[in-house]
Amino acid sequence: MLNKVIITIARQYGSAGREIGKKLAEQLTIPYYDEALIKLASQESGINESLFESADEKPMSSLWESASSFNVISLGGHFPAGGEMPMNDKLFLIQSKVIKELAEAGSCVIVGRCADYILADNPNAVHVFIHAKEEVKLKRVVESYGIPEGKAKEVMFKTDRKRSTYYNYYADGKWGRAENYDLTIDSSIIGIDGTVKLIKEFAQLKLSK
Amino acid sequence: MLNKVIITIARQYGSAGREIGKKLAEQLTIPYYDEALIKLASQESGINESLFESADEKPMSSLWESASSFNVISLGGHFPAGGEMPMNDKLFLIQSKVIKELAEAGSCVIVGRCADYILADNPNAVHVFIHAKEEVKLKRVVESYGIPEGKAKEVMFKTDRKRSTYYNYYADGKWGRAENYDLTIDSSIIGIDGTVKLIKEFAQLKLSK
Repeated sequence: MLNKVIITIARQYGSAGREIGKKLAEQLTIPYYDEALIKLASQESGINESLFESADEKPMSSLWESASSFNVISLGGHFPAGGEMPMNDKLFLIQSKVIKELAEAGSCVIVGRCADYILADNPNAVHVFIHAKEEVKLKRVVESYGIPEGKAKEVMFKTDRKRSTYYNYYADGKWGRAENYDLTIDSSIIGIDGTVKLIKEFAQLKLSK
Repeated sequence: MLNKVIITIARQYGSAGREIGKKLAEQLTIPYYDEALIKLASQESGINESLFESADEKPMSSLWESASSFNVISLGGHFPAGGEMPMNDKLFLIQSKVIKELAEAGSCVIVGRCADYILADNPNAVHVFIHAKEEVKLKRVVESYGIPEGKAKEVMFKTDRKRSTYYNYYADGKWGRAENYDLTIDSSIIGIDGTVKLIKEFAQLKLSK
């Protein structure tokens, strides 16, 4: 239907963002990448070895040069002057590069990892945030993700807090605020299939312009 | 197309939320109400006279009884114990009642005034937030709303701050956060007509369930 489309999905835990991403990828017959796969791709890319090596033994400024030579995105003013770049930041840089390469290579669906921010300027990308009503998320977390009922609320809260902390640190905006995304949808209202349909409709409208 | 549909639109200043609301109302041939019209409806309803009278001369608890008898929504714990209800709060109660009556009377589009919060439990309502890229909003504010170029950014910032302050005071969530709305759309990406189309599609998906 579309020449090239990259759909980034950020999501609340339990909102079915992953399922929605997988269905989108299936229906558009394009690859699907989530956090685990991006991590794997980073490990397999060979980039990380060299970057990690240089990071392991050199101060930030040197790593900065290595990072720049890989054309990774800027992290703004997050780093203290001098000193080592924290491991999380190294991983973010590597994953950013992998995400940019995946988006360069062709159409795909990417879930998580600040992909909306990393690909903010990509003209073929559509940036979506999925959320849902608490009771619907809790039900899904217990019934589909196998989290014990007594733990579900806590796991949900902590996972979302981790995601928002990660996003708020690396991206410019605040996780879950409408203005960071092209489109946000409450998946508990129109269901997984309805949400998939609406995202495709939006992508069609955006990319046919 | 739909038996009954109430579409509430919250929006950033300059994002074309009003234009989108008007087009939706036209295309669905249903009434359109924005902040000014709701204010007018409140003044004309006759409700406000009695409510204002009782509010003018009585402490909060008595007004509370009057308000309850009108079946207006709760304002949570916002009021200090005892003392007069501030005029803004009276107006909010009256407008809430008018908004509920409009939604009860039939299909409509309602822009602003926390309508999403006031009608959160209305099964026929669809709650939308419209935003847009800053440069697109600035252009619209200058070219269509007639704000001088040197003032546009300030007017935009102050208007949105006013809206978010109003919302954050009266509603439960934070203005512009995805989870308060069924759907949020960046209108600068798919345009006014694209946004109208997508909202209709969403409403169809929600209300045909």
